[in-house]
Amino acid sequence: MPKGVPAVLPNDGLTTRQRRNQPILAVHTGEGKGKSTAAFGMALRAWNQGFDIGVFQFVKSAKWKVGEEAAFRALGQVHEETGAGGAVEWHKMGEGWSWARKSGSEDDHAAAALEGWREIARRLRNQTHRFYVLDEFTYPLKWGWIDTTEVVQTLLDRPGNQHVVITGRDAPQALIDAADLVTGMTKVKHPMDTGRKGQRGIEW
Amino acid sequence: MPKGVPAVLPNDGLTTRQRRNQPILAVHTGEGKGKSTAAFGMALRAWNQGFDIGVFQFVKSAKWKVGEEAAFRALGQVHEETGAGGAVEWHKMGEGWSWARKSGSEDDHAAAALEGWREIARRLRNQTHRFYVLDEFTYPLKWGWIDTTEVVQTLLDRPGNQHVVITGRDAPQALIDAADLVTGMTKVKHPMDTGRKGQRGIEW
Repeated sequence: MPKGVPAVLPNDGLTTRQRRNQPILAVHTGEGKGKSTAAFGMALRAWNQGFDIGVFQFVKSAKWKVGEEAAFRALGQVHEETGAGGAVEWHKMGEGWSWARKSGSEDDHAAAALEGWREIARRLRNQTHRFYVLDEFTYPLKWGWIDTTEVVQTLLDRPGNQHVVITGRDAPQALIDAADLVTGMTKVKHPMDTGRKGQRGIEW
Repeated sequence: MPKGVPAVLPNDGLTTRQRRNQPILAVHTGEGKGKSTAAFGMALRAWNQGFDIGVFQFVKSAKWKVGEEAAFRALGQVHEETGAGGAVEWHKMGEGWSWARKSGSEDDHAAAALEGWREIARRLRNQTHRFYVLDEFTYPLKWGWIDTTEVVQTLLDRPGNQHVVITGRDAPQALIDAADLVTGMTKVKHPMDTGRKGQRGIEW
């Protein structure tokens, strides 16, 4: 856990406080478990600071991560009822983005992914949220459904103090270059190796 | 994300369902970020399944992870008030374990860590919780404050269906051998590298 004195003191004209409070672009990548899970763990901290949270899941199936969604919806409810923590919005591509009037052809994942990104770009420009989780967002980048160069530029140009966490395998190098914090999750050992399948409360 | 058909079908006399529902011992280790964060993310799923959650933090300072704690206390409150999700207990060594009548010398971290482990071992025998997070538990093992062989045996012998997630760098090999799921978090890039310190909502 990083604490104490940074390794380098940059000559960037910023005070320690200004530098400390720069918005973070984080990427969780690699073949191992925990990429999304750690992103949602970070969102817990953001919630506790009262940050407005926007989660955008670029997944086809809504089967996974129902646990995290239910817990964050409960936390969003706590915020609405008591003012504690931050507001939570949770959007999924798998069911058609909730803001979309019609989801178009359900089979056109490329169009749906691009539609999701366009909305996120709008929200970044409008500073709609303070903390964004773009879950499994590396895949539409990897598959060329969304232009990585445009994404990186939009992220670098985002105004104000908006934190963004992006998850998924095979993060493009341009995204890694643009990110402030990149963690690689590596599989050391997995129950599937010995023939065990996923189970509730653990995998979803 | 693992799904579909496991690579190996073990000849262990269990049905797929029995094998699927075996309790998990997971270890998050490595030098990178996200070890604890991913453990708390997993706990969100467990909470949503109505599992009784016990978190035990083997940290000296209570400064870190206040966000996760606040969010889980809020989820525990949701459970108490509405019955949704699971119960949550959160214990910290840093403030003296809450069950201890007196915390003894506050400087005796080795004794406090051992006291924490003894309580966890009792709870595992009594099946007190369904999902345990032993946060930063590898350090007292590494420093020899708690006997790794005893810990591994107790974990392997735990009755019923209790999931355990252990976090921290330098997990002992015996623990890795005993675990079902081991993920290594690797630092690819960190803001501290360029002189930025931690900030609220991100690091805590």
